[in-house]
Amino acid sequence: MASAPRKPFSRRIQNTPRSMIREILRVTERPDIISFAGGLPSPAFLDAAGVARAAGEVLAEDNCAALQYATSEGFPPLREWIARRYRTRFGLAVDPGEILITNGSQQALDILGRIFIDEGDPVAIEAPGYLGAIQAFSQYMPVFHPVPLGTEGPDPGEFSRIARTEDPVMYYAIPNSQNPSGISYSTRRREEIASIISDSETVLVEDDAYGEIQFSGDKRPSFSRLLPRDKVILLGTFSKIFSPGMRLGWLCAEGEILDHAVTAKQASDLHSNILAQRILYRYLQCNDIDAHISRIKKAYAARCSLMLHLMDELFPGEVTYTRPDGGMFVWLTLPHPLSAMDLYRRALAENVAILPGTPFYTNGAGDQGVRLNFSNADEEKITEGMTRLARVLDAYTRECRKGQSSPHPET
Amino acid sequence: MASAPRKPFSRRIQNTPRSMIREILRVTERPDIISFAGGLPSPAFLDAAGVARAAGEVLAEDNCAALQYATSEGFPPLREWIARRYRTRFGLAVDPGEILITNGSQQALDILGRIFIDEGDPVAIEAPGYLGAIQAFSQYMPVFHPVPLGTEGPDPGEFSRIARTEDPVMYYAIPNSQNPSGISYSTRRREEIASIISDSETVLVEDDAYGEIQFSGDKRPSFSRLLPRDKVILLGTFSKIFSPGMRLGWLCAEGEILDHAVTAKQASDLHSNILAQRILYRYLQCNDIDAHISRIKKAYAARCSLMLHLMDELFPGEVTYTRPDGGMFVWLTLPHPLSAMDLYRRALAENVAILPGTPFYTNGAGDQGVRLNFSNADEEKITEGMTRLARVLDAYTRECRKGQSSPHPET
Repeated sequence: MASAPRKPFSRRIQNTPRSMIREILRVTERPDIISFAGGLPSPAFLDAAGVARAAGEVLAEDNCAALQYATSEGFPPLREWIARRYRTRFGLAVDPGEILITNGSQQALDILGRIFIDEGDPVAIEAPGYLGAIQAFSQYMPVFHPVPLGTEGPDPGEFSRIARTEDPVMYYAIPNSQNPSGISYSTRRREEIASIISDSETVLVEDDAYGEIQFSGDKRPSFSRLLPRDKVILLGTFSKIFSPGMRLGWLCAEGEILDHAVTAKQASDLHSNILAQRILYRYLQCNDIDAHISRIKKAYAARCSLMLHLMDELFPGEVTYTRPDGGMFVWLTLPHPLSAMDLYRRALAENVAILPGTPFYTNGAGDQGVRLNFSNADEEKITEGMTRLARVLDAYTRECRKGQSSPHPET
Repeated sequence: MASAPRKPFSRRIQNTPRSMIREILRVTERPDIISFAGGLPSPAFLDAAGVARAAGEVLAEDNCAALQYATSEGFPPLREWIARRYRTRFGLAVDPGEILITNGSQQALDILGRIFIDEGDPVAIEAPGYLGAIQAFSQYMPVFHPVPLGTEGPDPGEFSRIARTEDPVMYYAIPNSQNPSGISYSTRRREEIASIISDSETVLVEDDAYGEIQFSGDKRPSFSRLLPRDKVILLGTFSKIFSPGMRLGWLCAEGEILDHAVTAKQASDLHSNILAQRILYRYLQCNDIDAHISRIKKAYAARCSLMLHLMDELFPGEVTYTRPDGGMFVWLTLPHPLSAMDLYRRALAENVAILPGTPFYTNGAGDQGVRLNFSNADEEKITEGMTRLARVLDAYTRECRKGQSSPHPET
């Protein structure tokens, strides 16, 4: 009956990869599934009682101010808290005026895309890279230049070549306990990358979602200590140490960058939920967040170590994997000719969910990679799930060895 | 020391009008100022105690689920509530699956820009038009086609010409108690516009931010009852009837549009604050929202009527203004050669803030227009503020009559 619109949708949205991951995560929400596919923090550290106390106090004391329109930049005391934390963690002098509160770091990624990327602009990104960043930046239609990651960080030769010949507008990096690979850049590699960046016109984005939950190894320097301040944009989040559902993160940058980011934020949604910002700030005042973080680290270290131990014991030798020093993920590399999508389907038939690697690549690669989350499932589920996955892997590997690598019947 | 980036920022962000309004609103936050410049609801109807009760219950009962990652579409029971409300308000059959929860309607505007606008695409918008929409859409670099508003709604001749010759991808409208003009489209004008839309390939966006707070006049039909469902996108918000600071609004659309909107939402910030969504839903369950809305309407009607009465009594006859039937704004038109920017400066010298009209136009026009908010200041402040404004206007008009319209010394 109605005339179909002529050019119904923007090229931008038609260009965005239809999220296979959305479908996968939907399947893995079934209660009978043991899932290593998501990226959820452990529910044990979501402090509903503490948040309830903070909410009660905020609404009693701040009253209407907690419910009224607020400034785009964010709640000033919370911005001050974040600036102070940079001082105590890295000895970095940050002015609260350099902090913009965002809806989780995902919105900070969107804002970066918005203020830096014109269609066709080159963007350097880790490979494998964080799929949320790939999704956010894709909306602004850049040309991605993937930088292969090794256990010490990005390949310096390839990074240098890209910086020199492609002149990216930014390099997006998660130097600590990277998502999805779980690796952290070594100090030496950071220095190499910083030196290449300072000779270029590229801005480095340090997304430090997992820096607070490093549970082993030496502390490594933030790029903000290795580069002039106007060459580094810092992203942070309260999702891993407080609550992901409250969607609170931040972007930290100097002068003009922050100014444009605030304009972009205002056009996006005026400001982040002010009640949530005030609750968080009150929570940080009334609770020992460092003790809370210590408990998270201890629990995640134990889960990671259990998962690695089971993999060492049970997985076929041809399957290799990273040994994370923090964060929430381990990355597997399957031997040729195994396919991660195929493994996903086989594991799902045993009620175990994994995340195949392709969404972490901008060029269709990644079907040898698998991301496993160790923060959400408890020890019992990790043991049972990894045992099942080992069984699946074992059968699949043997099948392939015999040259019988036929695709799963369901495909 | 650092090399300045080659092409530091995207054309998009350089293209966004630097918000003079941000500066104006900053000035008007001074406590000694009586402000009619903003767009804040009355603090009297921000129910901090009710929100505190709802928050306590949600965190006690839903526990961790209120703090964990959630789905991009939004909290299902809240989407069901919104769908039911469409049924009771307009008799419109809406499936909860057609609702996407956004961070206020501002994010819905951003999502619409994102999914519909390629650079250079024609967009039809009311003149004066909502500045938040102009800001949001500007980021996607459309060509705006302003449709002049009269007291009955948009000029049908001009709208028809634009629809025919420019073929806009969308027409953005606030048919009820429009921001900034305060006018509502008459039923006849709605039918004319609907008829033009149905002969075009344009989608109509009905932003109904103020429909719930209509305090006089007849109920008028939603465009969703005048057009096929795939030609209308509905936007709504809880900012005016619950809390603007909690940033909760929605987009309602069919099939493919909603599907793209969810992808855009996911790339933007994954999902809206789930704690806030659950608190709102609980609040709606435990409180009589219709009684709450009735109280808001009664108070705003009284304030609006007081403001109009003072204008009738005190303003020079050459100044004309709209007579709103709801919402939060009155629109003044100054006689030639008065300038709204000039009036703004003169009023500010008397500690009264108004909003000059240019940000509501996409073509630099509007310096004869002024937006006045009547929802935020109480009766005493309205009386004092309007008395001062009348004095300023009177002096300014007399000055201009004498041909002495010199700019204010500060300029």
